[in-house]
Amino acid sequence: MLQLYIGNKNYSSWSMRPWVLLKEAGIDFQEVMVKFDSFDKDSNFKNVVLAVNPIGKVPVLVDDGFSVWDTLAIAEYVAEKFPDKHLWPRDAKARARARSVCAEMHSGFGALRGKCPMNIEAALPQVGALVWRDEPAVRADVQRIVAMWTELLDQYKGPMLFGEFSIADAYFAPVCFRLKNYSLPVPGHITDYIRRVCARPSVQAWLEQALAEKNFVDFDEPYRTAR
Amino acid sequence: MLQLYIGNKNYSSWSMRPWVLLKEAGIDFQEVMVKFDSFDKDSNFKNVVLAVNPIGKVPVLVDDGFSVWDTLAIAEYVAEKFPDKHLWPRDAKARARARSVCAEMHSGFGALRGKCPMNIEAALPQVGALVWRDEPAVRADVQRIVAMWTELLDQYKGPMLFGEFSIADAYFAPVCFRLKNYSLPVPGHITDYIRRVCARPSVQAWLEQALAEKNFVDFDEPYRTAR
Ligand SMILES: N[C@@H](CCC(=O)N[C@@H](CS)C(=O)NCC(=O)O)C(=O)O
Ligand SMILES: N[C@@H](CCC(=O)N[C@@H](CS)C(=O)NCC(=O)O)C(=O)O
Repeated sequence: MLQLYIGNKNYSSWSMRPWVLLKEAGIDFQEVMVKFDSFDKDSNFKNVVLAVNPIGKVPVLVDDGFSVWDTLAIAEYVAEKFPDKHLWPRDAKARARARSVCAEMHSGFGALRGKCPMNIEAALPQVGALVWRDEPAVRADVQRIVAMWTELLDQYKGPMLFGEFSIADAYFAPVCFRLKNYSLPVPGHITDYIRRVCARPSVQAWLEQALAEKNFVDFDEPYRTAR
Repeated sequence: MLQLYIGNKNYSSWSMRPWVLLKEAGIDFQEVMVKFDSFDKDSNFKNVVLAVNPIGKVPVLVDDGFSVWDTLAIAEYVAEKFPDKHLWPRDAKARARARSVCAEMHSGFGALRGKCPMNIEAALPQVGALVWRDEPAVRADVQRIVAMWTELLDQYKGPMLFGEFSIADAYFAPVCFRLKNYSLPVPGHITDYIRRVCARPSVQAWLEQALAEKNFVDFDEPYRTAR
């Protein structure tokens, strides 16, 4: 049985990606939730996660005792293990493009990630408006997202980035929540894509479970002191 | 014919990875060198690179007009296009592990990358000693590299990280130069691995061509004013 170690659903954008991917593909797995207490060496989080991942981060996929860490490596592992699920686009060029945009997400969009951390339960339009006004790097990140999605939705005709749901949509699902929760201004066809992503049962399930969490994690809350 | 767009060999660690990988595998390609002038919107670098990559970074692989950007996506593309070259380890678990450590490199080791930028031509042991004394995050990055390589060399018996040369060695080749040029302290078996990587003809070729470059790129030279 596959096990997926994840952090708090409300905050952990990296955990969300493989969770949504596995649910979407109907692949059975056991969820191991490791709540964020702190990321200090002696935290419960680090103790539990370091037992399965030498770098002490979630997500981690454990397949019969064998650990795969880092979201992109997990996605590739699952895609290889379940080839009939076609988790990457089938066409070689579309697949290459999907890998380019996922790798881009994997190491990029630092401004958007830093200034608008995922916080599914919070509505932060005022914060979003200030960030939008004051942070050109965030505007540049959003501009790139809009250009990328526009081109892909146009080329592959939707409803998802490469037609059918793929790893790329799982990769950008947390970005949909950032754009939505901070009310960052994007064109209508982008809002439509966000709506379609949020309507997937896998994303709905994550959302509901995130809302049901009652933890308030200070270090993931730069803009609030309480719910 | 494949084309690989790269930056200055002396400085561009991301460019080095696919270049070494292709050479090592004996895959024919045309090198398109785009020298760093600046990364401003109106620089020659951006003008040339934006024509093949919407995010304006190197490396970019162009296959008969089709662009693949981002190092990890390029590696996967080449591995798929030339399956007989076995660019990832053949064993599924070894392959998953190789992808984990490459993805880790792809988004991590920020302190080492920031404080010890690749600069093949420079010997900077004094800088390295100060960085080592003053930057715990760099020490932690190097500690993780040492632990990772030690485990892999032990498990797969060398000479490369997964036995035979793989994408993982290409991924860490620039790290070998950082450790070497800043004389960061590492155990003997790590120095031996670095020596083996540097002795590969593909890495030698890159090194020689880097040394032959005469450009001094200010924004990649935090520690010198001239050669
Ligand atoms: N590149 C990693 C990033 C994972 C990551 O940063 N996870 C966060 C939670 S969303 C974490 O575990 N942080 C713990 C820490 O930084 O110590 C991946 O793609 O899996
Ligand atoms: N994640 C990218 C990083 C590429 C990258 O940062 N390349 C540098 C040169 S080593 C670059 O082109 N920088 C231009 C810029 O930042 O504007 C990859 O793996 O290819």
